[in-house]
Amino acid sequence: MKNRVLVADLPKLAGKTASISGWLYKRRLLGGLNFLVVRDRTGLVQILLEDESELKKLDGLQLGTVLTVTGEVFTDDRAPGGVEIHKPQLEILTAVKDVMPIEIDKPISHKPEHHATLFENRTIGLRNTNEQLIFKIEAAVERYIREYFESHNFVNIHTPKLLAEPTEGGAEVFKMDYFGKTATLAQSPQFYKQMMVGVYERVYEIGPVYRAEPSTTTRHMSEYISVDGEMGFITQLEEVCEFLSGMINYVCEKLWSKHKSELEKLQAKPVKLTKKIPEITLAELHELYFKATNEDTRNEKDPTPAEERFASEYALKKWGSEAIYITEFPASAMKFYHRKNAKNPKVADRADLIFRGVEITTLSMRENNYQTLLSQLEAIGGDPKHPGFKHYLQAFQYGMPAHGGFGLGLERLTQKIIGLENVKEATLFPRDMQRLAP
Amino acid sequence: MKNRVLVADLPKLAGKTASISGWLYKRRLLGGLNFLVVRDRTGLVQILLEDESELKKLDGLQLGTVLTVTGEVFTDDRAPGGVEIHKPQLEILTAVKDVMPIEIDKPISHKPEHHATLFENRTIGLRNTNEQLIFKIEAAVERYIREYFESHNFVNIHTPKLLAEPTEGGAEVFKMDYFGKTATLAQSPQFYKQMMVGVYERVYEIGPVYRAEPSTTTRHMSEYISVDGEMGFITQLEEVCEFLSGMINYVCEKLWSKHKSELEKLQAKPVKLTKKIPEITLAELHELYFKATNEDTRNEKDPTPAEERFASEYALKKWGSEAIYITEFPASAMKFYHRKNAKNPKVADRADLIFRGVEITTLSMRENNYQTLLSQLEAIGGDPKHPGFKHYLQAFQYGMPAHGGFGLGLERLTQKIIGLENVKEATLFPRDMQRLAP
Repeated sequence: MKNRVLVADLPKLAGKTASISGWLYKRRLLGGLNFLVVRDRTGLVQILLEDESELKKLDGLQLGTVLTVTGEVFTDDRAPGGVEIHKPQLEILTAVKDVMPIEIDKPISHKPEHHATLFENRTIGLRNTNEQLIFKIEAAVERYIREYFESHNFVNIHTPKLLAEPTEGGAEVFKMDYFGKTATLAQSPQFYKQMMVGVYERVYEIGPVYRAEPSTTTRHMSEYISVDGEMGFITQLEEVCEFLSGMINYVCEKLWSKHKSELEKLQAKPVKLTKKIPEITLAELHELYFKATNEDTRNEKDPTPAEERFASEYALKKWGSEAIYITEFPASAMKFYHRKNAKNPKVADRADLIFRGVEITTLSMRENNYQTLLSQLEAIGGDPKHPGFKHYLQAFQYGMPAHGGFGLGLERLTQKIIGLENVKEATLFPRDMQRLAP
Repeated sequence: MKNRVLVADLPKLAGKTASISGWLYKRRLLGGLNFLVVRDRTGLVQILLEDESELKKLDGLQLGTVLTVTGEVFTDDRAPGGVEIHKPQLEILTAVKDVMPIEIDKPISHKPEHHATLFENRTIGLRNTNEQLIFKIEAAVERYIREYFESHNFVNIHTPKLLAEPTEGGAEVFKMDYFGKTATLAQSPQFYKQMMVGVYERVYEIGPVYRAEPSTTTRHMSEYISVDGEMGFITQLEEVCEFLSGMINYVCEKLWSKHKSELEKLQAKPVKLTKKIPEITLAELHELYFKATNEDTRNEKDPTPAEERFASEYALKKWGSEAIYITEFPASAMKFYHRKNAKNPKVADRADLIFRGVEITTLSMRENNYQTLLSQLEAIGGDPKHPGFKHYLQAFQYGMPAHGGFGLGLERLTQKIIGLENVKEATLFPRDMQRLAP
């Protein structure tokens, strides 16, 4: 492949001879002329095939065939990339003799009723240029998140996913035999990232987590990539909210400045954000929702899915923001490691970030007083001596500063940025109750 | 923490008053004077404590106590960071009343006989400034690997770790109940990254893999971070070797240009590398080793650990390189997805990279012809219809270019760069047969 030219570089070679290599993506007969479309990692190029002996090389071969095409680069404004290859010579690198089980040269249906086909044929379907764009955007989202963390002096960590005990809850964990003992898969790096605040003050981790949730919604999977951040030596939740506002703004700005054309091809709508993401309290949301719909949710300890959508619409109308924080959750429903608000202990120092109608992350300040944490753990029946808690508590026993953080799903964030219906569409090989392959 | 100054920024504030916040790291009485050392994420600073009433605030408090110190920044060349804080006022943020189970204000023993203590108290031990450096270097290694992949147009992917079937071998996998079915944990993203070559040509993944190896060596863990790269449209193994040579060189250059002082504190020796990493064949290695030691390994299909060390010493003496490729492995011992050499089918297109005496990665060209791959799979008794193989084979049935790649352990690479004895020392919370916590 020494003299291989990438498709994206062809316009620079107009009038010259060039060799490209890629996959046969499309064949068409237009007004008696044979056209091929070849795909490489940078794009598609059309090839005008007139020579019968060259045409013959494709006898019995199907789309997907890997080949090198050497020919004249010809500028043609009507051609998809502005250039075509004329007078080609073909060299078949890998012959494909079977017809693909799905057509990948046109958009692949994402409708719920076609999901079985979409995911069963994922290996091939991802070769569709539109599908490819989704995961290029996802890689970009991750890249900009990493940039933001790094520029704020967060240290990248890797914590184990094989654990002795469930960290939270207990029912929704995968269990396995581990050299004669029982191990579980991490549902979150929650405890570890907090422990690491005692080491580096600011840490982040981007890695898989596992949830054995027997649910089949558009939001859940049993394996996803969790983006976790945790920061110490802050005094209030507001500082976590500010940090995350900055991150979401940064990611979106970078995306639309560096990947505008890809986002447009995916019909992604530019994200409307304010520099400071607006906030309402849960009580305010319940009231507003009650006034607007006459549906009484005022005793709910969490916003309902309908309220999440409502909050989003409200924020967009009132502040021009597609993101909004819901704050002041009741302490009675908080996790044992959350911190109660110092001024109003009935309220937890927790917020949910709603983005385009759905909750994408929970932020909170964590209880950092050893004795308080111990009693909050014991109040939910947790055993401080248990291997799942012992080392976590040790971090607090020997000094932890006030700290807080958040965790969000990379796929869900990407899904909402692009505007996909289901989080699985933003996952290369999704895992749910039914699906373990491909 | 609005007016908090980081320790690293103190020298700029000589003569002024500043507030720092961190952990009480050390206390000492020197010639009747009380000194404190406080740690924050940027370093250590010494505080001269003369005022009795301030000293009293520390009554009953232990190392690890979180506090804010406000005082005069005083330049003193004898002080560790070139400055001290004088006339301090202390504010206790989190009081620590218990004495830590290990001393973290001096280097922590990494001797094998102290590993139980080292890893049992990891949560606290990592607060030692030397331990911290190890994982800052590891984060830097990962950063520069990512930079290298990205600058060579590799796309960052995430592939599932929950699988229907073992991808290779079968014995050394963790198995678990998955909604009534059996799932296994990925030992490698091998099949997925190859499938993704059909999509993006060049992909990389950095994520956990799981090995149920019942071994307790200095090289193995049951969970580690695998750095995987895979590139298509190459014709020979040499191109993978070249790419990886470039990456290792890039990482080491960046490390020693950006983190020299940390590496020196860890007593890491600069890595000696040639731009092109030298190569010897396995047969040559066996012969050289036989001549040097009179030990006959010439029938071995892999280099022995002693030969790996020998190869490293040989490369250092002959070429001034601490890295060397061993090439031309026998095809009879290759994995089913490896490609045989076209000119000499008795040889597999595979190489091992030996770095500082130990194999850090296997590189290979993969068989990309569908029929050949099928028969190589069937020759080892694999069932092509099995969910673990079906979708993988599909990628080849519908067209795969020649490709190759490699996978290496982030922790092992970091271990060898720093010069640690055991890979677990380069792992925040290592997992082995005995250890599932912390």
